[in-house]
Amino acid sequence: MTAPPLDALLTAAGEASAVAGAPDDPATPERAARALWATLAEPGDGVAGALVAALGAAESYRRVFVAQDGRAASDAGIAPAELRAGTARWIPRLGEHALARTLVGASRCHARLLTPDSEHWPAGADDLGAHAPLCVWVRGRVPRFDAAQGAVAVVGARAATAYGEHVAGELAAGIAESGALVVSGGAYGIDGAAHRGALAVRGSTVAVLAGGADTLYPRGHTDLLERILRDGGALVSEVPCGTAPTRWRFLARNRLIAAFSAATVVVEAGARSGSLNTAGHAASIGRPLGAVPGPVTSAASIGCHRLLRDYDARCVTSAAEALELIGRGEPEPLDLGEWTGDRTRLRDALSRTTFREPGQVAARSGMAISEVEALLGALLLEGAVEHGAAGWRLRSG
Amino acid sequence: MTAPPLDALLTAAGEASAVAGAPDDPATPERAARALWATLAEPGDGVAGALVAALGAAESYRRVFVAQDGRAASDAGIAPAELRAGTARWIPRLGEHALARTLVGASRCHARLLTPDSEHWPAGADDLGAHAPLCVWVRGRVPRFDAAQGAVAVVGARAATAYGEHVAGELAAGIAESGALVVSGGAYGIDGAAHRGALAVRGSTVAVLAGGADTLYPRGHTDLLERILRDGGALVSEVPCGTAPTRWRFLARNRLIAAFSAATVVVEAGARSGSLNTAGHAASIGRPLGAVPGPVTSAASIGCHRLLRDYDARCVTSAAEALELIGRGEPEPLDLGEWTGDRTRLRDALSRTTFREPGQVAARSGMAISEVEALLGALLLEGAVEHGAAGWRLRSG
Repeated sequence: MTAPPLDALLTAAGEASAVAGAPDDPATPERAARALWATLAEPGDGVAGALVAALGAAESYRRVFVAQDGRAASDAGIAPAELRAGTARWIPRLGEHALARTLVGASRCHARLLTPDSEHWPAGADDLGAHAPLCVWVRGRVPRFDAAQGAVAVVGARAATAYGEHVAGELAAGIAESGALVVSGGAYGIDGAAHRGALAVRGSTVAVLAGGADTLYPRGHTDLLERILRDGGALVSEVPCGTAPTRWRFLARNRLIAAFSAATVVVEAGARSGSLNTAGHAASIGRPLGAVPGPVTSAASIGCHRLLRDYDARCVTSAAEALELIGRGEPEPLDLGEWTGDRTRLRDALSRTTFREPGQVAARSGMAISEVEALLGALLLEGAVEHGAAGWRLRSG
Repeated sequence: MTAPPLDALLTAAGEASAVAGAPDDPATPERAARALWATLAEPGDGVAGALVAALGAAESYRRVFVAQDGRAASDAGIAPAELRAGTARWIPRLGEHALARTLVGASRCHARLLTPDSEHWPAGADDLGAHAPLCVWVRGRVPRFDAAQGAVAVVGARAATAYGEHVAGELAAGIAESGALVVSGGAYGIDGAAHRGALAVRGSTVAVLAGGADTLYPRGHTDLLERILRDGGALVSEVPCGTAPTRWRFLARNRLIAAFSAATVVVEAGARSGSLNTAGHAASIGRPLGAVPGPVTSAASIGCHRLLRDYDARCVTSAAEALELIGRGEPEPLDLGEWTGDRTRLRDALSRTTFREPGQVAARSGMAISEVEALLGALLLEGAVEHGAAGWRLRSG
């Protein structure tokens, strides 16, 4: 097939947008071309990512589809075969109205387009390299993933227990109260509890969706996702509005949750929970990873325990500990107990009822008489012991 | 005071033992002198430990108490002031019958004396350096701490929950079934559950006591401790029979639990549980440390979670994982999920009801038509898809 030039796509998009109501972002050709690439390629398409990163979105489009310039591959550092395979993947979605549909879809639900030149582009996304999102669509208030307060992903199993949902809600509330952003995936179970926990304290929360930002999925979370929009949160997605969530897109979406956030905490996860995939992404791009423990008798905590065991996840039991992952708050030291201590030995050797001579106390405690006498004097001043004709004893109360 | 020579003490002990019934160990002067030192010094007395390690028990006794030879300090690498302070600590317990009382007490309850030259001396004790026990008294079957099957300490809070006791019992049973020794402290709560778990599968278990091996403490565990003896386990202690447990001796005892075992697992521990002290000893002598997680809402698991967070304890959720700590059994790898995978993308794009052409499937999946066709062919062979006049769909069931 012959691919239409970008100008033609832009013109078609402009005309369609004018009918639907203009998008609120200036659609420069480069930004529009990113939206187009995100329409043609599935999330995480590394070949599309490499081309756009190396050549720019508009120029990549021109060279790949219009000029059919094979040197684009070497210029983008990819193999010619990869470019050919990529082109074959993208072509089925390319048509005169490909961009128009995407921009009109965004316009209809007031989704804003973020690209790397946007002020609030989530910089963490770039850690995904060639698998970075080509653009991000945002409904609601544009989130500040990179604000000083930070962003923490709170994710977990759909098949959560009451315990898990309770903990997720508490964690998210504490994180949100500190001013940090609570990022999750909008799913049933832990994700939903995390969003609700943040909303409950009027905090900020973002649901990163696997389908389009207008596609409220799962159905049973329509109210929750609308409430996120209404209460100052956001729904974000890398795929065009109108795109259905698929298993593939859920898996790809998980990398965004990990990359947009400064740290990821998994609250409950079965042995095969999708949230382990999010954890894997977080670990692979060097994000701190936390896992909330639970009863070892609970199947819903198996994944968390495996993260603790095998992936060096930090054990997270409170919002304060989650915030430590992003460098906020101070860890509290644990006292493993002092097993030296003459006072302990002396008290062990004293009675509350019977008076004992220092010599007896020394023999019982294994301390020198002189030590016993010195310490008894100190304890007398503190009111901890009393002295009678027959020796010393502990004071009651 | 003038200290009696060791010979006098041995003679007194021999006479007393003859009356009480001879101990079953050959009481060489050196072994008897170790038992004497363990009578004079409290557990973990580093000065006594350094002297005995450097000069031998009998010779240390002679130089310190009989010859009052100040050079013993420099010969043992300790400061003269330490030796003076030590002597002042030990003197109150020294009398003609000190050793006799200890040996007669052991004889009465059939406690056997282990010293470093004993075949089954717990070699791990030597990792405590100057704080190593001077001797170990054993009632019951002499434990093989260093057997190939290994020994695992299972310890935890007295104030355990039903969850903690359940898990401790299961862990101990699994460890014991593998042939390993279950070491604990005989206390209420986790310790008791661990001993019971091992006994339930006819496994080997050892209670390391803070008082003498004949002093069944706590009272409520008299039956349990007697059952350990009856069923082939052992009660061991470093203090002479007849010695009362004190807080000091509990703390000191904890180091033995850690040192006798190849690894320590803490099942439940409040923020100030004594079992954290055992964990601290295990860590300080380089023993692998495990902690069993629990609900973050449970105060009884706070200490375990702190061990996971701050002390690099391994998360232990099963006996198999406890055995991994001592190098037995293989860890199972965790699959963090594959988010590439053409099959996932293809299946996402197929329906169970509607037939779709490869071109439609390519557009939906973001794959090349040639890839779609090749993979559909493979899935057809596998029986996963079916082909009709209108295209392809997933086969049901």
